[in-house]
Amino acid sequence: MNQDHEKQQLHLPRGFSFSAATAGIKASGKPDLALAIAAEGASAAALFTTNRVAAAPVQVGRDHLARSHGRMRALLVNSGNANCATGKAGHIACRQICAAVGDGLGMSGRQVFPSSTGIIGVPLQADKILARLPQLIAQAEATEAAARAFAGAIITTDLRPKLTSAQLKVGNKTISILGIAKGAGMIHPQMATMLVYLFTDAEASPAALQGHLRAAVDLTLNCISIDGDTSTNDTVLLLASGNSGLKLQSEGVRSKFAESLAAVCRSLAEQIVGDGEGVKHVVRLLVQQARSREEADQVARTIAHSLLVKTAWAGADPNWGRILAAIGRSGVPLDPARVDIFFGKQQVCRKGEAVSFDEKSAHLYLSQPQYEITIQLGRGKSSSEFLTCDLTAEYVHINADYTT
Amino acid sequence: MNQDHEKQQLHLPRGFSFSAATAGIKASGKPDLALAIAAEGASAAALFTTNRVAAAPVQVGRDHLARSHGRMRALLVNSGNANCATGKAGHIACRQICAAVGDGLGMSGRQVFPSSTGIIGVPLQADKILARLPQLIAQAEATEAAARAFAGAIITTDLRPKLTSAQLKVGNKTISILGIAKGAGMIHPQMATMLVYLFTDAEASPAALQGHLRAAVDLTLNCISIDGDTSTNDTVLLLASGNSGLKLQSEGVRSKFAESLAAVCRSLAEQIVGDGEGVKHVVRLLVQQARSREEADQVARTIAHSLLVKTAWAGADPNWGRILAAIGRSGVPLDPARVDIFFGKQQVCRKGEAVSFDEKSAHLYLSQPQYEITIQLGRGKSSSEFLTCDLTAEYVHINADYTT
Repeated sequence: MNQDHEKQQLHLPRGFSFSAATAGIKASGKPDLALAIAAEGASAAALFTTNRVAAAPVQVGRDHLARSHGRMRALLVNSGNANCATGKAGHIACRQICAAVGDGLGMSGRQVFPSSTGIIGVPLQADKILARLPQLIAQAEATEAAARAFAGAIITTDLRPKLTSAQLKVGNKTISILGIAKGAGMIHPQMATMLVYLFTDAEASPAALQGHLRAAVDLTLNCISIDGDTSTNDTVLLLASGNSGLKLQSEGVRSKFAESLAAVCRSLAEQIVGDGEGVKHVVRLLVQQARSREEADQVARTIAHSLLVKTAWAGADPNWGRILAAIGRSGVPLDPARVDIFFGKQQVCRKGEAVSFDEKSAHLYLSQPQYEITIQLGRGKSSSEFLTCDLTAEYVHINADYTT
Repeated sequence: MNQDHEKQQLHLPRGFSFSAATAGIKASGKPDLALAIAAEGASAAALFTTNRVAAAPVQVGRDHLARSHGRMRALLVNSGNANCATGKAGHIACRQICAAVGDGLGMSGRQVFPSSTGIIGVPLQADKILARLPQLIAQAEATEAAARAFAGAIITTDLRPKLTSAQLKVGNKTISILGIAKGAGMIHPQMATMLVYLFTDAEASPAALQGHLRAAVDLTLNCISIDGDTSTNDTVLLLASGNSGLKLQSEGVRSKFAESLAAVCRSLAEQIVGDGEGVKHVVRLLVQQARSREEADQVARTIAHSLLVKTAWAGADPNWGRILAAIGRSGVPLDPARVDIFFGKQQVCRKGEAVSFDEKSAHLYLSQPQYEITIQLGRGKSSSEFLTCDLTAEYVHINADYTT
């Protein structure tokens, strides 16, 4: 999948500086350490993996948010090692690194938010990270180049860094939102954690931020599925410096901000699904006429996780029977005789039965790198949109050939 | 996967005859019509797909069982067309075929149990089947060759027919159980319905049979997973002629019969999982120390359906981190710090953390065509056994290249 996000000029929110370094955690020798500093502090909100196996940084990050009452002054990310299933030693290493960042910036380690991504079950070499911290702190800059370096240092198996930004004007003031992400489920998925960092200069309380973050993520980053596996390190963090002078909760800002935040999250979600050598087709599933949003989601997820459906997509095969069978086992008590299925605008199933359609044009439609499939359940008025992708032989080759 | 079931001599239950024919439903010109006759009738019990999209024969079969109060005299199976998503015409075709079998045997069509497997959404050509019925009925025989011909005519993408049998002696009498199945989720899964037919000469009421069938299937055929997709036509049917003169519910028969029936179902389950060009490794998952059987099943299913785990198995990769991550997202509120994982007898994870193990010998162990992985949750005394397989690039190639 080709994307032009690298060429976009970024809107940088005020109050943040960035830097990156190579600590030698990645065997490749590529940059693997990234720092973001909010010198005057930032309100913070976060969402974490629901996996019961949560890595040390997820647990420490949650703890630091609670103890600092949602005020953070730095974010430190390492790639190459997830610091997961590493026991007590993993926790100690994580806290030690946070404390060292705090020392370097003259503040408490509890105001440092840690993230890790990479291999599971291998001890994190904290000394390699500690040795790079002075350089990392000294070089932090509030520039686009530094933000791009940050994005480059947090990726693992991603083919390219993932950034996007948005700006909204209210009167003569502006709010910027910068989004940086990593994640590409198709390659070496042991290192396929989704990390998303959102930076803004809006002014907001941690509680208000949390509500905005939840709403934006529910409609975007929570509606993507590559392979159905939830990582042990998944983290979405939103930091708000307040430097724009615009209060998030004020009239005329709230709804515009919500819209822009969702747009940033949506772009990052698309970049994540579209990344990875294995992905040939990005599929937007539109499930309509459900009784509730939950019901629509359930149908969309079942389709998105069906191996038979995903392999049919890899071959651009207009095999709607597999989609109908997936709908039928979704657990929603629907009547198959009311189900309609469309590839783009072309109807392929009406009231649960075949309709005659041009298979060649359907095949051509499904051969595109990105397309839409609409499912109408004939039960109600709720709908859901879900972004997913095909399952190719490359996915299997890459994941089977990866050895610990 | 190589199996020797074809060479086994079969124990044929008395009271049944079999035959097969070529009706021309399959494009390949291979046999696609199979008949089993219980001339004096048989008690019947059945389990069907839970998919809301149920094919016409599933609905008609359910109806015939109810109307005949669980007494069947014939079973007619066609392969090559699932008669699913075919609307009212599909139902009419199915009933018409049952009626014609009834006419040929001098009984009601309601005593005929129908099954179909094959492509979805294509009208069933009933006339082709009707034309072959006289020959099919005339040629039915109570021989091993005829039973094997039946087994050969119900397969679609299976590499080989699936049969097994068992015999139990009580005093100087014997009960035989014959099992015939089709199903191989790896190839052309639009035609991957699981059909299982169990024939016995035990004497039993339909209600007693149903209890035995449910118990045997729960521990065997319901504990296999190839790709997590449930077909629209899945059917398991148990017919009991009573010709052995041994009552199923009598002392000394019940438990022996239950054991033998489970053994037959287990063998068929193994044959189904092991079949298909895509399968390189059959994996027996043993989930132990759960609080309940349901909880153990939930963990086993999450592991068995994880793409990351299944692709690691394809590469014989001792990547236990993927298994731990799957356990963590199973929905069971477990403590990862109590989880142990073993490849065979070799422990690879203790209390949620890495233990040093010989990766080379673990890789060799996982290179075998069949092996065991044990997961201990440290929560209770319940356990579950689940049979599954790896996900290979061949699976994707075959399923992506199949076009409707």
